[in-house]
Amino acid sequence: MSGVVTLAVDAMGGDHAPGMVVAGLNIAAERHPAARFLLVGDEAKLTPLLRRYKRAAETCTIRHTPDAISNDMKPIAALRNRNASMRIAIDAVAAGEAAGVVSAGNTGALLALAKIVIKTLPGIDRPAIAGITPSARGDVVMLDLGANLTCDARNLVEFAVMGDVFARTVLGLTAPSIGLLNVGSEEQKGDERIRQAADVLKESPIGSQFAGFVEGHDIAAGTTDVIVTDGFTGNVALKTAEGAVRLMNALLRQVFSSSLLGRLAYLLARGRLEHLREWLDPRRYNGAVMVGLDGVVVKSHGGTDAEGFAYAVDVAMDMIVHRFNERIRDGLVRMVGPISAALRRDSDEARRLASAG
Amino acid sequence: MSGVVTLAVDAMGGDHAPGMVVAGLNIAAERHPAARFLLVGDEAKLTPLLRRYKRAAETCTIRHTPDAISNDMKPIAALRNRNASMRIAIDAVAAGEAAGVVSAGNTGALLALAKIVIKTLPGIDRPAIAGITPSARGDVVMLDLGANLTCDARNLVEFAVMGDVFARTVLGLTAPSIGLLNVGSEEQKGDERIRQAADVLKESPIGSQFAGFVEGHDIAAGTTDVIVTDGFTGNVALKTAEGAVRLMNALLRQVFSSSLLGRLAYLLARGRLEHLREWLDPRRYNGAVMVGLDGVVVKSHGGTDAEGFAYAVDVAMDMIVHRFNERIRDGLVRMVGPISAALRRDSDEARRLASAG
Repeated sequence: MSGVVTLAVDAMGGDHAPGMVVAGLNIAAERHPAARFLLVGDEAKLTPLLRRYKRAAETCTIRHTPDAISNDMKPIAALRNRNASMRIAIDAVAAGEAAGVVSAGNTGALLALAKIVIKTLPGIDRPAIAGITPSARGDVVMLDLGANLTCDARNLVEFAVMGDVFARTVLGLTAPSIGLLNVGSEEQKGDERIRQAADVLKESPIGSQFAGFVEGHDIAAGTTDVIVTDGFTGNVALKTAEGAVRLMNALLRQVFSSSLLGRLAYLLARGRLEHLREWLDPRRYNGAVMVGLDGVVVKSHGGTDAEGFAYAVDVAMDMIVHRFNERIRDGLVRMVGPISAALRRDSDEARRLASAG
Repeated sequence: MSGVVTLAVDAMGGDHAPGMVVAGLNIAAERHPAARFLLVGDEAKLTPLLRRYKRAAETCTIRHTPDAISNDMKPIAALRNRNASMRIAIDAVAAGEAAGVVSAGNTGALLALAKIVIKTLPGIDRPAIAGITPSARGDVVMLDLGANLTCDARNLVEFAVMGDVFARTVLGLTAPSIGLLNVGSEEQKGDERIRQAADVLKESPIGSQFAGFVEGHDIAAGTTDVIVTDGFTGNVALKTAEGAVRLMNALLRQVFSSSLLGRLAYLLARGRLEHLREWLDPRRYNGAVMVGLDGVVVKSHGGTDAEGFAYAVDVAMDMIVHRFNERIRDGLVRMVGPISAALRRDSDEARRLASAG
């Protein structure tokens, strides 16, 4: 890819901001020579940091604002503050000054601001949060991770379309398989809304990729490349899996540190154990994408460190360089007609049944 | 505890039934000298099995029926078959012939039959499925695991009450802490129904045990002794955690088997690694309890083996010996009054606000 890519960065979002952000950009600048960063935040804090991080200094332009959105601020209050670093970074995307934005700040505020300022793609009812999680068969795309606590059939179908493009763009797959998260794999399982979404997907242009219902254990098994679910379930499932991996890591540390033999065993298997730990390192999966918006918006975990923040920048660069949103737009054009027709047929059918009964 | 305890056992439920069931009872019989089993199923298959398992033969009485409920049978069809092994086993509890029932068969059918034949405890709107899962701070009780895909505030509050008694009875805790599963721990997180349940629990007689909202990663962290959620989320979360642990185990097996050094490392740390594997063994957590019913109903995992089935029998015996249902009844008497009043106050308030607005 030729030419410079400008990314707006909320310097003040995250538990360890702005130090973690600038240190993260210092790492990212080396990995992405084409990247330039519009660093939005408090100049008095950022200038000394840029003095410390040389590569970041070469690629960052500071846009000063003293305001920031706190982690406990409600979205409605965040919308009112037009001078917050997060807001100005998002404005830069809407104005075409930046190709995307990365923030480790308040998720609810970021989503609300992005919806209002950047707006959703035509044909998308509600944006979703998509992320990547490790599995036995490679990385798996999962969405929604918390943007929409309740979803109807149409939302779930749209998430499947966006998950398909995400897996093609970020994981480089040609025909990713798609599963709908449920309490069982049999057709009659789940509630009305989830069964309706399955019916629509089966008949859709991505029907051949649709693998039907999957269950919780299918996430780590990697049964499908994309897992579609509502934001409540997706958020709980992702954090549950992270918690289980963290517990296993802590228990293994005990095994290998509690005795001389254990320490010796660790030394013998060290290479592979380190490799495993790195592969499962949550920082490697940092950078959730708000998909369905007319711009690239990446949310970094609030508690991450510089290394993790650099991974979130990787994700944003991937989305931009591989023209994620244009591909979603293309995918939607192909999908929206048939899907709307199917959903309409379904609700006509429901009305007919209701009036007949 | 003195005297004999009779348990009705569905001999024909489960992927490896009836062989796995009889072999499981052979293990259980040794652990529970007071237990007698009413073994319901096909005599022609059971008699030769009992010839093979001596301890099971000494403690089992066969009640013959040729019928069984298949795994894909819908609950409504299961209700019609009055001669199925599962039905006859449940009838034995309702008739007072057995103190409880264990089945590894069709979950939906077991729940539907139990609700209709054994009935719910007075004051309980809907029974739930409760289970135990390992955490960094000991075993954690989680419910609902799939009996109710959607729940209102009242259901969640009742689950909390039953989870409290479950943790006291099975884990032997004196004042178990209780968390409500949500997408964040802040008070404004989640939907209306979950916030209403939190408000009610805070003001209830178990308010001092209520720790507020917990997130997915709190399950494995053991942040609270009891985790309350709806059946869809609980089912997905439990299976997600199981899947993550299974993945870690598979990856570790690779680390320790892929090279000579790895195998040597395993030998050095073997004792502790085996201990860890045993502690996380899903069979040890087999036996989900259908709580809120006027009898002890335990569901074993369908794919379990004899060892796992014996754990499900342990759970049933625990519930019976520690008089679980009587304690739930006592707990409810203490709780239902204040809870109903709080829910009524809340909905009066909502109505007032609605008519005012």
